[in-house]
Amino acid sequence: MKRRDFGHRPGCAVETTLDLIDGKWKGVILYHLQGGTQRFGELRRRMPGITQRMLTKQLRALEEDNLVVRKVYAEVPPRVEYRLSEIGESLRPVIDILKAWGEGHQGRLSCAVPDVVEAPDRAA
Amino acid sequence: MKRRDFGHRPGCAVETTLDLIDGKWKGVILYHLQGGTQRFGELRRRMPGITQRMLTKQLRALEEDNLVVRKVYAEVPPRVEYRLSEIGESLRPVIDILKAWGEGHQGRLSCAVPDVVEAPDRAA
Repeated sequence: MKRRDFGHRPGCAVETTLDLIDGKWKGVILYHLQGGTQRFGELRRRMPGITQRMLTKQLRALEEDNLVVRKVYAEVPPRVEYRLSEIGESLRPVIDILKAWGEGHQGRLSCAVPDVVEAPDRAA
Repeated sequence: MKRRDFGHRPGCAVETTLDLIDGKWKGVILYHLQGGTQRFGELRRRMPGITQRMLTKQLRALEEDNLVVRKVYAEVPPRVEYRLSEIGESLRPVIDILKAWGEGHQGRLSCAVPDVVEAPDRAA
């Protein structure tokens, strides 16, 4: 276990949090799980811009960081559910403020998903 | 200019904000600029884990996103200073909460910088 001296590296705390929610998808997944337990397919439907492979990868990373708990039910076909861990829940205010800031700057939106609507000034 | 329908894609707001501060360094740079205008060399000293090339690249990206303002003074040698734009300033509460969460989870710190101290339980 490695430790840091925060006194000399205050930026490290910012870096640590961003490490956990980086690559944009993780934060979005955490946001959707704030609504409660979700099956893989449900998450997928809520995030049209992500591939199945990427969603799997990001969920695995979140599980490894103990932010998300994966539960497999022994059914046929097997049911797999994801929910926030206690630490994942503690990120709720962080995710909330990311969302609030983004909503306040709608003009900057850049989400790479297929449901793009051209604004009137550029419409054909 | 592309626009989004937030009603159908609430996660997009989270994604947008993370897009702007992603890759962990941008958030750290914004954090350091919250203290006021900084020269390139000052920023570099505050972030021992980043290379000169990466810092240049990230500052350029922040400038393109209008979060950071770069000012060159016609001196010899030229003086280059960076400060937060108005939009960059508006991210202050976001950066603050990223920092607060990281500080509250010191055990998870993973900053890749040289000043690592081994915890007593693993010390030789």
